[in-house]
Amino acid sequence: MEKIDKNEKYNKIMDLIKRRGYLWNSFEIYGGIAGFFDYGPLGAILKNNIVNTWRKHYIINEGFYEIEGPTINPYEVLKASGHVDNFTDPLVQCKECNESFRADHIIEENVDIDTEGKTLEELQALIVENNIKCPLCGGEFKDVDTFNLMFKTSIGPSGKRVAFMRPETAQGIFIQFKRINQFFRNKLPFGAVQIGKSYRNEISPRQGVIRLREFSQAEAEFFIHPDKKNYEKFERVKDMVLPLLPSKNQEDDTLSAEEKIVKMTLGEAVEKGIVKNKAIAYFISVTANFLLDVGIDANKMRFRQHLPNEMAHYASDCWDAELYSDRFGWVECVGVADRTDYDLKSHMATSGEDLSVFVEYAEPKEIETFDIELNFKALGKTFKGDSKIIQKLISEMDYKEIEEMVSDIENAEKGNKYVLKAEDDKEFELTSEYIGAKKVTKKITGEKVIPHVIEPSYGVDRITYFVIEHSFNEEEDRTFMKLAPTVAPIKAGVFPLVNKEQMPIIAKEIEETLRNSGIIAEYDDSGAIGRRYLRMDEVGTPFCITVDGESLDSGTVTIRERDERSQKRLKIEELGDYITNSLK
Amino acid sequence: MEKIDKNEKYNKIMDLIKRRGYLWNSFEIYGGIAGFFDYGPLGAILKNNIVNTWRKHYIINEGFYEIEGPTINPYEVLKASGHVDNFTDPLVQCKECNESFRADHIIEENVDIDTEGKTLEELQALIVENNIKCPLCGGEFKDVDTFNLMFKTSIGPSGKRVAFMRPETAQGIFIQFKRINQFFRNKLPFGAVQIGKSYRNEISPRQGVIRLREFSQAEAEFFIHPDKKNYEKFERVKDMVLPLLPSKNQEDDTLSAEEKIVKMTLGEAVEKGIVKNKAIAYFISVTANFLLDVGIDANKMRFRQHLPNEMAHYASDCWDAELYSDRFGWVECVGVADRTDYDLKSHMATSGEDLSVFVEYAEPKEIETFDIELNFKALGKTFKGDSKIIQKLISEMDYKEIEEMVSDIENAEKGNKYVLKAEDDKEFELTSEYIGAKKVTKKITGEKVIPHVIEPSYGVDRITYFVIEHSFNEEEDRTFMKLAPTVAPIKAGVFPLVNKEQMPIIAKEIEETLRNSGIIAEYDDSGAIGRRYLRMDEVGTPFCITVDGESLDSGTVTIRERDERSQKRLKIEELGDYITNSLK
Repeated sequence: MEKIDKNEKYNKIMDLIKRRGYLWNSFEIYGGIAGFFDYGPLGAILKNNIVNTWRKHYIINEGFYEIEGPTINPYEVLKASGHVDNFTDPLVQCKECNESFRADHIIEENVDIDTEGKTLEELQALIVENNIKCPLCGGEFKDVDTFNLMFKTSIGPSGKRVAFMRPETAQGIFIQFKRINQFFRNKLPFGAVQIGKSYRNEISPRQGVIRLREFSQAEAEFFIHPDKKNYEKFERVKDMVLPLLPSKNQEDDTLSAEEKIVKMTLGEAVEKGIVKNKAIAYFISVTANFLLDVGIDANKMRFRQHLPNEMAHYASDCWDAELYSDRFGWVECVGVADRTDYDLKSHMATSGEDLSVFVEYAEPKEIETFDIELNFKALGKTFKGDSKIIQKLISEMDYKEIEEMVSDIENAEKGNKYVLKAEDDKEFELTSEYIGAKKVTKKITGEKVIPHVIEPSYGVDRITYFVIEHSFNEEEDRTFMKLAPTVAPIKAGVFPLVNKEQMPIIAKEIEETLRNSGIIAEYDDSGAIGRRYLRMDEVGTPFCITVDGESLDSGTVTIRERDERSQKRLKIEELGDYITNSLK
Repeated sequence: MEKIDKNEKYNKIMDLIKRRGYLWNSFEIYGGIAGFFDYGPLGAILKNNIVNTWRKHYIINEGFYEIEGPTINPYEVLKASGHVDNFTDPLVQCKECNESFRADHIIEENVDIDTEGKTLEELQALIVENNIKCPLCGGEFKDVDTFNLMFKTSIGPSGKRVAFMRPETAQGIFIQFKRINQFFRNKLPFGAVQIGKSYRNEISPRQGVIRLREFSQAEAEFFIHPDKKNYEKFERVKDMVLPLLPSKNQEDDTLSAEEKIVKMTLGEAVEKGIVKNKAIAYFISVTANFLLDVGIDANKMRFRQHLPNEMAHYASDCWDAELYSDRFGWVECVGVADRTDYDLKSHMATSGEDLSVFVEYAEPKEIETFDIELNFKALGKTFKGDSKIIQKLISEMDYKEIEEMVSDIENAEKGNKYVLKAEDDKEFELTSEYIGAKKVTKKITGEKVIPHVIEPSYGVDRITYFVIEHSFNEEEDRTFMKLAPTVAPIKAGVFPLVNKEQMPIIAKEIEETLRNSGIIAEYDDSGAIGRRYLRMDEVGTPFCITVDGESLDSGTVTIRERDERSQKRLKIEELGDYITNSLK
């Protein structure tokens, strides 16, 4: 019975948002394709308003900067990031009808088992043991295989330059880290964001707007000194109380579902070691504030820590903001992860570029080192072409190796010589004829550091859907969306009470004046006034302005508030400020 | 000599915008790939500000609505649109080194010939006649071939569902026309826009940011009744004077380059039939206003009409907004085209969906028609399974055909029968036994219309580049960008004159207060104040605020204006409004 109710509400929401231009099935006139959705006229504004609120939090408030790179990424980038090898799902294909399915999903639909972290062999065994067959035709499955989820293409006319549609926006930030660091003039910590399309060629997506093959991400990468993860700005938010679902509690079978959730301050969570560092905790607070700002229901939001077996191998801690759907249950919408220095190191190794930050010491440090002088003439005479190799090897020596070399050359017992070994086992005997070294004290002003990355990553489409679901309301005589005024697509409906005298003209003037000050207002003169209110309620418009008989004499109009349906009279020239103030 | 100067200026601009974070080569640490560019931290804000100004013009002022569909488009959509067959460039490949080139470009680089509109055979002949060889290795070319410029991929695990990265955003609007029309409740004219990435797998792009393989478009589709293209809003802009380059003048060799350009009002241009209709002319004016708003130099902007041989076969008129670059010459940045009903008709034919609009008449009309009654029993008895075909054929008849049928059935000379022909040449003899028809008068309230489309299509990346080039200025002691305050990424630099007393604290407070009111301000305390001014000038920041000794007593600061370098004192609490007012 409950299931029917849930679907009923979901069906009502989907009907409303398709009919009124929030979300549409993509390619509908060609039969549609699973995993693709369009934002209609109101949906696109809602989404843009959500993204702009996000920008306000990260760019204006946190001082992060946005970059925008290509969605087509060449092979090298995604090989280095690990996606070529690991961005896969387990696939089974039916021997009879050739239809493909996700192996883990097929198993979970048939057997009460959590497949998280299972290997291909384990999944294969589960299918055989439980005699699982194709849900469409009952046919047997071929062996479980991996399927890479990136959309593949190639750049240029040869077809040989393999590329993929990016699976996340984050890599575009990591590969430009050198430039970004130059922009921020080496001043850690700093943050960069990227907002845009990412792609995941799902095997068989069946969850509507929740599981898309093309989706919008807003990802922030906060670069921080690895020794300074106890981010000082955390002090500002340490008293924020949030519902947390720590990994330990999830694994503790003695706790009930409710007991697993703990409500505590972020300060306490860090102190107890539940959240691993203050930087992660800080961005959990930014995430919560952003979600509440765009109208997510506080009672339908929680932060769940990843279990050790579901965390990416490079991450040291990860918390998902999960939002509750009457239809889909708890759904991951944001991930706040400590990605450590994994990505920068991978790209350093593959590209050969130095992606470190030069961190200045507060005070310059004095260190002991050697000044080395090479006698190039003598080296050339003896070692010919090899003298370049010798030069290179010496330049790469660290302090201890130089110390050993100098000591050997000065040590009569060792024959006043040092044996330098090249990679190919060639040996060079070096004496003071070739090398002079002097111990000196030098001032150094800083050191190279590869920063760690805290990544808050947002699924914009899911958040947009949840803003709609959480704001969906039904009363006896109407359906309305309780959208926050900041995100509502249309801010005001403007109506003439009746289509006569000056009323339509005045109403149209009000619409134009509001638009000129940047407020999207919609004139509507068709049907009874009550029906016009209901049309605006349904799409979440917070205000309705009506020009009536009194307006002609007094220059005032009624303004009706959506949620309480309360009305008051305002002067026409006060309308702009009144609406603008509600948007702050 | 002139060429060297042009490159010198371009190189200075490219150096500045790479160094200061406007534009970067994509995938730089992996060697870069031609045709891809990143927006750096300041470039991304500049681009977003330009896009938001565009939204202001189209969404807020014109009342258009935005939609957002997938960038991955399935084969069917792009087959119907003509891109699978026609979105190609002519390609030549070297027999020796295998490098590929655009055949038309290679020819134009070698011979003084305009290749516009030439067929593959003509291009091939030109290469042979002029003995053109590979510019890299001198090798001979293989025969000229066509290369489809769409990036190809596939959806789902089978690999059989072919798809492409969209070559334009426009198709995403056309295929959703049914939904869009539903949203606008059949009230022509109306407009929809789409902003986002489009893709063009260029054969060998060599013009930096001007020719990209992945680029951002902002496209508006204005749907209008085909008989009402003399758009009434044109009256508001008919006196606007613009430099036009009509197709006739371009083809007239007796005119000098300057004489080909005519400065005239849009009203005159429409009257003289130079611009084909008022709807196109109106959106030329919207385009000009938008470009001037974001800081394009009015003296470096012109509108050029397409020549008959360069216009898409379906277009009835097309005007490009061209902007002048010291490096690239005149470059197309916007196209305003009348696409007629070509796209909607193509998708109707391919999908079988009705993409017409039901246009109500001002007054219902009375028309003569027939009420037809079929005797299903008799039909079934005589024609068996074919009676369904008969039924369908009759339902598809127009008034004249029905009139003929009725007359035949009633005409003794013709044997009181009508011969109905099916597609497969089957014939059915129909008599009054099967069919009754009665002439009646009916009221109809409107008719189905397939609207025409006026499309203003903007290349966002090119416009962004031109805003930079047109605002680049050099004075003896500084380089500065004269960016319009609305588009400038950083609105204000905030400096303590010296790093002592309360100055840094007050300056940081000012930065935070400005940010809280949505203004991007940047605190900077490093180096001499003059150098800090210059750093901000270079990136186009319109205002610099300095906290000095006097600030501590009087609560005032200096605010310096970028272009004139004039300074005045303002109270700290006046800063927000002062800057906000400059953004209107």
